Amino acid sequence: MGSHAFDATIALQPLGGGRFAGNTSPAYVNMVGPFGGVTAATALNAVLQHPALLGEPVALTVNYAAALADGPFEVIARAARTNRSTQHWVVEIVQSGETVLTGTALTAARRETWSVDELTAPDIPTPDAVGKPNMAAPVEWVRRYDIRITEGAIPTAWDGGGDASRSTLWMRDEPARPLDFCSLAAMADVFYPRVWLRRATRVPAGTVSMTVGAGWLKGQAQAQAFRNGFFDQTAQVWSESGQLLATTHQVVYYKE
Amino acid sequence: MGSHAFDATIALQPLGGGRFAGNTSPAYVNMVGPFGGVTAATALNAVLQHPALLGEPVALTVNYAAALADGPFEVIARAARTNRSTQHWVVEIVQSGETVLTGTALTAARRETWSVDELTAPDIPTPDAVGKPNMAAPVEWVRRYDIRITEGAIPTAWDGGGDASRSTLWMRDEPARPLDFCSLAAMADVFYPRVWLRRATRVPAGTVSMTVGAGWLKGQAQAQAFRNGFFDQTAQVWSESGQLLATTHQVVYYKE
Repeated sequence: MGSHAFDATIALQPLGGGRFAGNTSPAYVNMVGPFGGVTAATALNAVLQHPALLGEPVALTVNYAAALADGPFEVIARAARTNRSTQHWVVEIVQSGETVLTGTALTAARRETWSVDELTAPDIPTPDAVGKPNMAAPVEWVRRYDIRITEGAIPTAWDGGGDASRSTLWMRDEPARPLDFCSLAAMADVFYPRVWLRRATRVPAGTVSMTVGAGWLKGQAQAQAFRNGFFDQTAQVWSESGQLLATTHQVVYYKE
Repeated sequence: MGSHAFDATIALQPLGGGRFAGNTSPAYVNMVGPFGGVTAATALNAVLQHPALLGEPVALTVNYAAALADGPFEVIARAARTNRSTQHWVVEIVQSGETVLTGTALTAARRETWSVDELTAPDIPTPDAVGKPNMAAPVEWVRRYDIRITEGAIPTAWDGGGDASRSTLWMRDEPARPLDFCSLAAMADVFYPRVWLRRATRVPAGTVSMTVGAGWLKGQAQAQAFRNGFFDQTAQVWSESGQLLATTHQVVYYKE
């Protein structure tokens, strides 16, 4: 997988003591700094590369404290608590001596248990029926994905209409790449039109609960409330066959 | 407000350098350790008491790494990044030299902007119509709230039935107490029957996006998926008049 732009972008050089050196990449440039999804994936990658890692990711929270500048940065991952089957991580990204991301992660040894998806995937046209990528892409990172929106592509007005904030779409890496925790974390942040249209400049928080899958992903996002410069949105990501892979909750900054 | 059990329970003694001394309270005892809601509120309280605080809470994430034992603990709150109008916090609770909670918080100077609640409150019978508290309470903390469930009080089977995980309820502090960010954070964790019935012993993650209100609160929670020992749930809290006050997203550990 080393030749895919995604892997090159989230790559980290271990510095010892839970510190890792990374670099921004022109492949995932957003309006201001990199696409938040790859920054979240990079933070997760530090946890996954840490020699003390126990288990696999269950939950990831990242808070974007400032936009990353182009260039090198350092990720610090610390196992704050290691239990028998779970591990709690504190993650921070620092650039030029300043914190640009804070976060926490939970990893765990997965066990086979009774399981059920309560939230069924929305019934939408297949990727082939949509035909081709249809997310307007004025920024570079959007070209790293094949995104086929089936609902909520371009909200036409922010008039508080009930359905205005919901988007439903298919997505996968472009070119295709096997899905793993890092790429799933990144794709959980793809639901951007609300933010973009509202001229948000930062995405201060996102929680991602993750399990792994493959192929096309189906996603849906909807806001719950907009107030005083912040809105929140929930989103879900299903596999092509309808298995719920990840759920996210974000709090997003916006300007009036 | 100092005479209310809630205030006494989340009270902190500043130790300097962002460290605060706290103590568990018999008033909010849960099955194992204190009610997670007051622990989250205590973590938030350290941020609110911090002399460097900018603005008011917008988002709070807490990860319960281990159950608190009865007795003293220390909360460490660090302003990792302070921007012009936002501030990013890293919070940790330590007891007997071990981390029991990790978390992050976002505070911000609130601005007047275009605002709308996209998610309308469910239409349910009034608290008076329900009549009296009806949450089965084998643990002490439940007596600190007046909780009136209108739907999903006691799931009868975990058979994957579509509506089995949804609860809708009214709640307020008992005795009544003016609502603030800390009490709202605590009440965002009240949606416990799923966890209790599944014998979860920890609630590893919760994100709370908060604004302030007063009076009776209306709440609704629903799971999205259960798999391999973890489930997630989203919940919303509205004011009595229907304003959306907080949304949360939790990842919850459960045993088969």
